[in-house]
Amino acid sequence: MPEFRKDIVTREWVILAKERSKKPSDFERIPKKEAPAHDSICPFCPGNESMTPPEVLVYRKQGGIPNSPGWQVRVTPNKFPALLPEGDIHRRVYSTIFDLMDGVGVHEVVIENPYHDKSIDQLPIELVEEVLWSYRERYETLMKDDRIKYIIIFRNHGRIAGSSLTHPHSQIVALPVIPQRVWGKVHGVFQYYEYRENCVYCDMLTKEREAKERIISENSFFVALCPYASRSPFQIMIVPKIHNQTFIECKRHEIKALAHILKEILIRLREVLSDPPYNYTLINAPIERTDNSFHWHIDIFPRLSTPAGFEIGTGMYINTVLPEDAARYLKEIEVPIP
Amino acid sequence: MPEFRKDIVTREWVILAKERSKKPSDFERIPKKEAPAHDSICPFCPGNESMTPPEVLVYRKQGGIPNSPGWQVRVTPNKFPALLPEGDIHRRVYSTIFDLMDGVGVHEVVIENPYHDKSIDQLPIELVEEVLWSYRERYETLMKDDRIKYIIIFRNHGRIAGSSLTHPHSQIVALPVIPQRVWGKVHGVFQYYEYRENCVYCDMLTKEREAKERIISENSFFVALCPYASRSPFQIMIVPKIHNQTFIECKRHEIKALAHILKEILIRLREVLSDPPYNYTLINAPIERTDNSFHWHIDIFPRLSTPAGFEIGTGMYINTVLPEDAARYLKEIEVPIP
Repeated sequence: MPEFRKDIVTREWVILAKERSKKPSDFERIPKKEAPAHDSICPFCPGNESMTPPEVLVYRKQGGIPNSPGWQVRVTPNKFPALLPEGDIHRRVYSTIFDLMDGVGVHEVVIENPYHDKSIDQLPIELVEEVLWSYRERYETLMKDDRIKYIIIFRNHGRIAGSSLTHPHSQIVALPVIPQRVWGKVHGVFQYYEYRENCVYCDMLTKEREAKERIISENSFFVALCPYASRSPFQIMIVPKIHNQTFIECKRHEIKALAHILKEILIRLREVLSDPPYNYTLINAPIERTDNSFHWHIDIFPRLSTPAGFEIGTGMYINTVLPEDAARYLKEIEVPIP
Repeated sequence: MPEFRKDIVTREWVILAKERSKKPSDFERIPKKEAPAHDSICPFCPGNESMTPPEVLVYRKQGGIPNSPGWQVRVTPNKFPALLPEGDIHRRVYSTIFDLMDGVGVHEVVIENPYHDKSIDQLPIELVEEVLWSYRERYETLMKDDRIKYIIIFRNHGRIAGSSLTHPHSQIVALPVIPQRVWGKVHGVFQYYEYRENCVYCDMLTKEREAKERIISENSFFVALCPYASRSPFQIMIVPKIHNQTFIECKRHEIKALAHILKEILIRLREVLSDPPYNYTLINAPIERTDNSFHWHIDIFPRLSTPAGFEIGTGMYINTVLPEDAARYLKEIEVPIP
């Protein structure tokens, strides 16, 4: 029998169509071309720094001139930004009923490393940490802008996941509004808190660690699991054990632990599903949120199925892989633990 | 300057990135293989009726034996259903915090015509009407089931839009719950109604018909337009001028007018964007909704861009084509008006 499962935070029902159940090998894909280690026309490769807007943050071990080679991580404004940083939003009404405002915001690119062909899980652990530190530094800078209400950090891996450039990079978008999906999570968390006087993510972690069957991996500070109401095959969440509103509250050793579990999980994903396309997002509380109910986390969505009319019309997802099965595949494969 | 526009019903903000603006020819695609008029291994082609579960509705001009050739439209249960029609939902709680219920519901396929290679916009207008009548008859039958709270009718056109079989078909899913996206629309409509004492779709139609710039086409009973806060390039809505909760309240001549505008709009889409993949959905009020605030409509989403980490994490869309431009392209192309 198929099963409806309800997301405990967003309250979205998901259909788990067990009868259509799939194994990892059922998700066939066109094999990717091997990327070269350096690409002379790639705007993110060393030597091509002039092809991007000037850097807003750079990590260099040896020092050096800005916007020249020798960097480890480099953050620049997006050359084709969805939003522009100047001015005020000018919220207004068009034709007496439609709300609009100027597209004010910040859209940045984190060039994660100098190597054209090395994705985040293929980097030495120290360099994964550097990427996380760059996220954090930019977040801390951008949140000081009074116009900014929400900052999202995300990574698109592979063309099918919406990545238009091969060179490994993440993106940061700072918004003058709180997106509805984030509001949905904030409300869900708050209503659970009002009713149970507990954090829903903390409770969920307790239950999941008892049940074990959806847990992939765990270290001192983080748990990686396939959520009970996974919307898509092999969906993964990385949840901190310490209840914090945003990831910038992480201490130095927590960032280290996050780098370890993130790298490990992305290696597992690559091995089980032969380097699938995926998106990950860091979901934090809205900047002005002053109550203490939110619990930041990372959502990882492998892009193995195509949302169609049903998903677009209803917002409800049909998932053909049970999270218990996905967790088992991901956990059982032997990989070097970073 | 980019622009934020707010969806008047769902209250989702959309980013219109005019600086990245695209023309129809920018949406390049791999050309499709020509399909044959009949495919001997296609489960939806005449002669292969035994490859599907037995029909639940069939239109035959000349009569004939059930589940044999000679039909015009044929509706059968989905062979690989996401939900099963037997039993009760058994709503319960797992591990003290997770809600679940059995996957009870109905999942049907509408085989729109006997020709393997003729999409809905390529059919004579009488056959488009037949498809709409089949939607209506199945909706009326399924809504009588006490367990069913919402019925969605949708069509996936092209592989990128999630269609796994070439033979033109629609799908009907009857659900024991009201999906969150539908709730969002129902609430949006109701709150506007409470505040303005008017239907938001009726008001929107008035404003759009004054402004003209987003209207593609119009007949006695329907208006086709590109919504003010379009989430994706060339998004289209077909809205009835008569305020009704669901499309089954349409009179005979309204169904005829709907067939005309639907066919016309899909021809325009095919011509402007060289047969793009798309999804359309018929959005009706939930079955038990007794107040009169909802206004049914059809949403058409061409699949020209790939939602990535930003869209998945925030639920907010970045659209690179202004709806005013999309409407102009769609309106200006010369096509035979059905």
